[in-house]
Amino acid sequence: IAYRPSVAVMSITSSTNSANMYSTLSVNTVAPFVTHVTLNRPEKLNAMNRAFWGEIKECFQKLSDDPDCRTVVLSGAGRVFTSGLDLTDMSDFFDIIQSEQDIARKSKLFYAKVRDYQDSFTALEKCSKPIIAAIHGACIGGGVDLISASDIRYCTQDAFFQIKEVEIGLAADVGTLQRLPKAVGNDSIVRELAYSCRKLPSDEAKSLGFIGRIFPDKESMMNAAIDLATVIANKSPVAVQGTKINLNYSRDHTVDDSLEYMARWNSTMLQSEDLVKAAMAQMSKDKPTFSKL
Amino acid sequence: IAYRPSVAVMSITSSTNSANMYSTLSVNTVAPFVTHVTLNRPEKLNAMNRAFWGEIKECFQKLSDDPDCRTVVLSGAGRVFTSGLDLTDMSDFFDIIQSEQDIARKSKLFYAKVRDYQDSFTALEKCSKPIIAAIHGACIGGGVDLISASDIRYCTQDAFFQIKEVEIGLAADVGTLQRLPKAVGNDSIVRELAYSCRKLPSDEAKSLGFIGRIFPDKESMMNAAIDLATVIANKSPVAVQGTKINLNYSRDHTVDDSLEYMARWNSTMLQSEDLVKAAMAQMSKDKPTFSKL
Amino acid sequence: IAYRPSVAVMSITSSTNSANMYSTLSVNTVAPFVTHVTLNRPEKLNAMNRAFWGEIKECFQKLSDDPDCRTVVLSGAGRVFTSGLDLTDMSDFFDIIQSEQDIARKSKLFYAKVRDYQDSFTALEKCSKPIIAAIHGACIGGGVDLISASDIRYCTQDAFFQIKEVEIGLAADVGTLQRLPKAVGNDSIVRELAYSCRKLPSDEAKSLGFIGRIFPDKESMMNAAIDLATVIANKSPVAVQGTKINLNYSRDHTVDDSLEYMARWNSTMLQSEDLVKAAMAQMSKDKPTFSKL
Amino acid sequence: IAYRPSVAVMSITSSTNSANMYSTLSVNTVAPFVTHVTLNRPEKLNAMNRAFWGEIKECFQKLSDDPDCRTVVLSGAGRVFTSGLDLTDMSDFFDIIQSEQDIARKSKLFYAKVRDYQDSFTALEKCSKPIIAAIHGACIGGGVDLISASDIRYCTQDAFFQIKEVEIGLAADVGTLQRLPKAVGNDSIVRELAYSCRKLPSDEAKSLGFIGRIFPDKESMMNAAIDLATVIANKSPVAVQGTKINLNYSRDHTVDDSLEYMARWNSTMLQSEDLVKAAMAQMSKDKPTFSKL
Amino acid sequence: IAYRPSVAVMSITSSTNSANMYSTLSVNTVAPFVTHVTLNRPEKLNAMNRAFWGEIKECFQKLSDDPDCRTVVLSGAGRVFTSGLDLTDMSDFFDIIQSEQDIARKSKLFYAKVRDYQDSFTALEKCSKPIIAAIHGACIGGGVDLISASDIRYCTQDAFFQIKEVEIGLAADVGTLQRLPKAVGNDSIVRELAYSCRKLPSDEAKSLGFIGRIFPDKESMMNAAIDLATVIANKSPVAVQGTKINLNYSRDHTVDDSLEYMARWNSTMLQSEDLVKAAMAQMSKDKPTFSKL
Amino acid sequence: IAYRPSVAVMSITSSTNSANMYSTLSVNTVAPFVTHVTLNRPEKLNAMNRAFWGEIKECFQKLSDDPDCRTVVLSGAGRVFTSGLDLTDMSDFFDIIQSEQDIARKSKLFYAKVRDYQDSFTALEKCSKPIIAAIHGACIGGGVDLISASDIRYCTQDAFFQIKEVEIGLAADVGTLQRLPKAVGNDSIVRELAYSCRKLPSDEAKSLGFIGRIFPDKESMMNAAIDLATVIANKSPVAVQGTKINLNYSRDHTVDDSLEYMARWNSTMLQSEDLVKAAMAQMSKDKPTFSKL
Repeated sequence: IAYRPSVAVMSITSSTNSANMYSTLSVNTVAPFVTHVTLNRPEKLNAMNRAFWGEIKECFQKLSDDPDCRTVVLSGAGRVFTSGLDLTDMSDFFDIIQSEQDIARKSKLFYAKVRDYQDSFTALEKCSKPIIAAIHGACIGGGVDLISASDIRYCTQDAFFQIKEVEIGLAADVGTLQRLPKAVGNDSIVRELAYSCRKLPSDEAKSLGFIGRIFPDKESMMNAAIDLATVIANKSPVAVQGTKINLNYSRDHTVDDSLEYMARWNSTMLQSEDLVKAAMAQMSKDKPTFSKL
Repeated sequence: IAYRPSVAVMSITSSTNSANMYSTLSVNTVAPFVTHVTLNRPEKLNAMNRAFWGEIKECFQKLSDDPDCRTVVLSGAGRVFTSGLDLTDMSDFFDIIQSEQDIARKSKLFYAKVRDYQDSFTALEKCSKPIIAAIHGACIGGGVDLISASDIRYCTQDAFFQIKEVEIGLAADVGTLQRLPKAVGNDSIVRELAYSCRKLPSDEAKSLGFIGRIFPDKESMMNAAIDLATVIANKSPVAVQGTKINLNYSRDHTVDDSLEYMARWNSTMLQSEDLVKAAMAQMSKDKPTFSKL
Repeated sequence: IAYRPSVAVMSITSSTNSANMYSTLSVNTVAPFVTHVTLNRPEKLNAMNRAFWGEIKECFQKLSDDPDCRTVVLSGAGRVFTSGLDLTDMSDFFDIIQSEQDIARKSKLFYAKVRDYQDSFTALEKCSKPIIAAIHGACIGGGVDLISASDIRYCTQDAFFQIKEVEIGLAADVGTLQRLPKAVGNDSIVRELAYSCRKLPSDEAKSLGFIGRIFPDKESMMNAAIDLATVIANKSPVAVQGTKINLNYSRDHTVDDSLEYMARWNSTMLQSEDLVKAAMAQMSKDKPTFSKL
Repeated sequence: IAYRPSVAVMSITSSTNSANMYSTLSVNTVAPFVTHVTLNRPEKLNAMNRAFWGEIKECFQKLSDDPDCRTVVLSGAGRVFTSGLDLTDMSDFFDIIQSEQDIARKSKLFYAKVRDYQDSFTALEKCSKPIIAAIHGACIGGGVDLISASDIRYCTQDAFFQIKEVEIGLAADVGTLQRLPKAVGNDSIVRELAYSCRKLPSDEAKSLGFIGRIFPDKESMMNAAIDLATVIANKSPVAVQGTKINLNYSRDHTVDDSLEYMARWNSTMLQSEDLVKAAMAQMSKDKPTFSKL
Repeated sequence: IAYRPSVAVMSITSSTNSANMYSTLSVNTVAPFVTHVTLNRPEKLNAMNRAFWGEIKECFQKLSDDPDCRTVVLSGAGRVFTSGLDLTDMSDFFDIIQSEQDIARKSKLFYAKVRDYQDSFTALEKCSKPIIAAIHGACIGGGVDLISASDIRYCTQDAFFQIKEVEIGLAADVGTLQRLPKAVGNDSIVRELAYSCRKLPSDEAKSLGFIGRIFPDKESMMNAAIDLATVIANKSPVAVQGTKINLNYSRDHTVDDSLEYMARWNSTMLQSEDLVKAAMAQMSKDKPTFSKL
Repeated sequence: IAYRPSVAVMSITSSTNSANMYSTLSVNTVAPFVTHVTLNRPEKLNAMNRAFWGEIKECFQKLSDDPDCRTVVLSGAGRVFTSGLDLTDMSDFFDIIQSEQDIARKSKLFYAKVRDYQDSFTALEKCSKPIIAAIHGACIGGGVDLISASDIRYCTQDAFFQIKEVEIGLAADVGTLQRLPKAVGNDSIVRELAYSCRKLPSDEAKSLGFIGRIFPDKESMMNAAIDLATVIANKSPVAVQGTKINLNYSRDHTVDDSLEYMARWNSTMLQSEDLVKAAMAQMSKDKPTFSKL
């Protein structure tokens, strides 16, 4: 596939390259300041097991602070993006059921567990670098929660999405019901998907507003995702990260509150060297070089 | 029409079957756990009269608690879905105008009246069971408020929608301006519709995000609506109702607040028998049977 | 072009006609109660200079109170709608940079400056009359902030939109990040645009939900915009302005809060003479005449 | 006791006098436009039984609309104000425990029950007429929730208050934890009371900010409460009810939001005849007579 | 009186000294960086007339930006602080009543008027410099609204406060109902005052939490107020203004939101020279000199 | 001192006893389910150094989950409670100043640092067990932030409190400005303290509402604090922790939202065994024994 060689050619030795750091993810620098995170248990369809929940959180918390990372591409290895929660690894839940007799005490344990899982995906939202999710094949259950916490969503023609939690007897609890409706433009379809567990094909996902672009195959999608990531990585990181943080803030606040936060933000950021560098680059038509952030 | 016989064949004797319970609605069980509510004054184009406002509220409050109902299909009898407010029955408003001299005193009466009408449609939103509105022909004025408070919206090719209140000299006050913009994805069109009272045809309603699916005729729409309702009714009611309640909550709260509410919710619901039943059914490929809720 | 003569023919002498009132805008009455505001520095591509920020604010504050105005059409003179911030006029910013040594003191000045700019566009949102932005050619940077604060957006086929701030090293700070995501239905595309500064063509802008209608050329767009403005201007101004104010309120509040506000609103407005006039006009099929507001 | 005769002397025949209307309350008009509601199961220490929860709600909903009522005094018959929840009548709770096996299903029933109880006390808050709670002796458990939903709190020297719910194994759930901390000025003491169930004596209740005035005995308290109620009842009901509604609104909204709501409110109410009547009365030193509301 | 001579002795020529700038206020610099604003129509008991509403707003907007002002003392000339709204100047209101026939149109005018008045007092809250209100004698009606928008409240033993609006037939609409309850600790007393219009004496105002300190006479109060203002004026203006802005923000937001805003704030302000100057002054025991802000 | 021996006598071997676990804290079990956390650098007046910020966070996160802890008493060893931030350990801040040239980049580092410090104290608020702060001597700067995040505040007669941050050139940023005003009842005094840095003596702290009780000396205070902690520890932990979580929630939400959250909470917790145990204990007058939580 075309986009892999380009990675090999680069052979950057980044602090974030971590072949053996995680058991469920691989993390590579695929272009300057562009990090590629791969869900990497292809033999298990990238199902989300116990290790995954800790690793995905740690990974994006580190990337948020990693000055060598300015944009992230997130994709899945193997046949599908992810099959969602690894049900063979649900012993934690049964442990809770059996560990306590009292409902209130079980409730405290379940609450902590759900909160932990939620925090894992909130780490993507809180990561100050834009995240481009590139989805092929199936994206099921927890996979929808995961990409709902990403910034930009690309997919292949053959991709499909499924909010599957109701099928296993529970309401989706790690972000889909909270983030997806605010990111798209057809509440009727969102609710139909969430109640009925039907599969959402890629083209309907695009017209729903969940997906930004559809590609014929994974190779073209990955190339486009990395190209976009590269474009963003060449921009001022002060400007890009400020844009993400303010977009997140605006989603959850009134316009008035958000304008106030924005004005405070830029009262500092307009003093940054990036503004001068970007302005000069615009005039000289040169490509600006920004310091790490 | 095909979907009616299926109802007759079933001949379920549900507590919610109520041929003579309401003067403006008919309520029938059309499949196990699937309730069909029909706006049933076809000779008046299902215009919303004084009786209607009380009955629609009572109907959905009861369905929310009715364990024999898990999903509701809402449609209109006769030529159209609804022509909106029954203007021949507006004597209440004129009574208020004439009953008092003082502006402040009239204001208190009008406030109470508007609040009553709003509560009637909020009853759909608060009903813990998903509501699929199936619209054919005209859906005017109060009809748009009504379906904005539903979960899922299907319509026929010949359906059209009209926010008509401005034409009669007032701002729409029973939910359209509050709910519709948060359910769709084109504020420019929403405002054009609300200011100009122009008719919104079915296909533009779909691209606006107001409608989930369009059907060639009422029969195919009703069959699809009941099929969808049946699919949902076969799912765990704990999971489905929890999904609705959390989707409603998320619309009106920040993501952080909504995740917290969700985690508290599932700290209880993960202890439900439905989870085990659904999980076992998934493994055995059997259809699970859930207790009433 | 067809729509200009119609203006000339009308030759209304409105208090808001102001050929020489503003240096960056022209303001004309183009139909009864329809005001046309033109960004009017075509030789500078309607770039936003220092004078512009004060004038646009003053203009829309006046229109909000002007009883001869019921709807506003906003367009740009010359080749494009606007090229955004006038960079040759950025001396204010450099004055701040140089006027103070201390970061905190510069910060206070920058905050005040950004707030001033924000207030200029918030004046469109607070203007109680609907504003129809009619965009042709380029709409860049501040132009996107400007039309995000309008009610309805029409554009020509050749129009394009660009959130360009990141390219000059800052996060967009006069409304785009706060208003645009709440007006459309594809967060993935919004974020891609904001991070990468790529141009958004008219058709994608429509499918994104940012634009209501696309026209083949400026003439047909202007005619349609003025026609729509005229339709709205013939409606009850009590009803139209109440609709705008309640739509704005709803965007930033919960449905419950918004229903309460709406009920209080109509407890007064249902006592207006407009209701009676509109109701009688409906029955008599005559065109109603509403008093000024 | 002095305040009772005054009632007898008045012998007003109000629609709200209801010796036999309620089994747990008595409702009397004790002065023009002043309603006295008494918790009236003295032999049971005014414990809150099943009937009580429905009656208190109905009572205050009616008073809110009763034009003959402008202020309410709420007190307890017999030795104490109230001993709180009637534990001998808790069979509803045990019915729920036993009626269902599944946790999720019990949870839905308990939720409905708690919501019902909460609504009963929210009826006091939503009642548009000021409520003066006059407490003597014990005010325990639900009694604290009840008076927290009142406007003004007077008590006798021998009164004490006790948030007792923790002692019976639950967190207080009908309003104390939600309303009391926002009505007083010492969070440290509030939390100590709620965690430890210790009794709060009257003087500490006053310094905490929970009580407005302390009286040596019930007679002097009742006389003062009725005097205050009479003073308020002689004011413009438009002004008084508007004050209550806006105070309630302000507690739960930002100052900006509350000023906006207030301005909309008075844009109507400044047109009321009460303003003119009150202004003229001020000038002429006469007592104004206001129409019913 | 002692504090006047100290002013005379200083004879600072500040840009804010404005003997003839305002007709209802006098503005003087009474100590370095300390501005004294006096309600200055003693012959009219400092009643708030039409000119006042514009001047008080303009005055505090200017002080917010005036680098020679770091703290403001606000007091009243003559016998009392203020008698509130100047009723002899209420022609604006009667003009509105008579200018329009239609309720909705009057409503728009009243709304604008109330909003204008509210903005006048919100100018005190938005002024980034702390305001110490020093009240003697009567503080009635609008006076309570005014000081509720101040930061610190001192009063003399003979001062009293009266929310008098209900007496003239309206709910207080320029800030009292919105700000006062959030600044004090006894909601029962607040509501009693607002409903009954009774006078609040100084000592009860202190125990209510409305007043910080009481003084035997105006002279001692003014000296203490100016002393406190001087202490504050000697602190870092970056620190003091940041404290005010964050206290205001916290009142209207959750603790989480407020901590976020605070952290963004100090991410800039910790880079200010004031931090170094203050730290060095602490070590050297010298008095620091801060640049203007 | 009397309260120390009682600890020694108990000689409980709790998992939370940690003489050598922390360098700045000591943690002991002083009564069944009662944990005593001591700020333990008396030779440095318990100044908050780098180690402290990590330890206090870890400590309260552990206690939140520790089933052997039901209440916490927090006090300071040595002469004072705490002198606040350890200025000799501020090298982190100077490292940031020097590590970067660009304002935006420094800003990101400072933001992260402030957030870390805030999180340390938010850990007390999020700890589900009530925390009783027992303060003697000085409580300065960060000490006020710390105890503002506690539940209950006791102090000795000789204690004083000082918001000292403005004196060192910054606005207090770890919680005081966010939490303290919502916990007390006199905004005028809060602002005076925050702007002027004056010391707040214990008796004024009590009348302000910041302190619950004052004691003549540390010994009597510690005995009372441990007694209160013991009383609370003997209550149902389900009830106590639910009370804390709901009080925290109520502070930051509307009453409506908080009642909803409370009803959901108790829909689970009313099914707990604690309810039955507590009810039976009430009847039998026995002391109930609750399972760990």
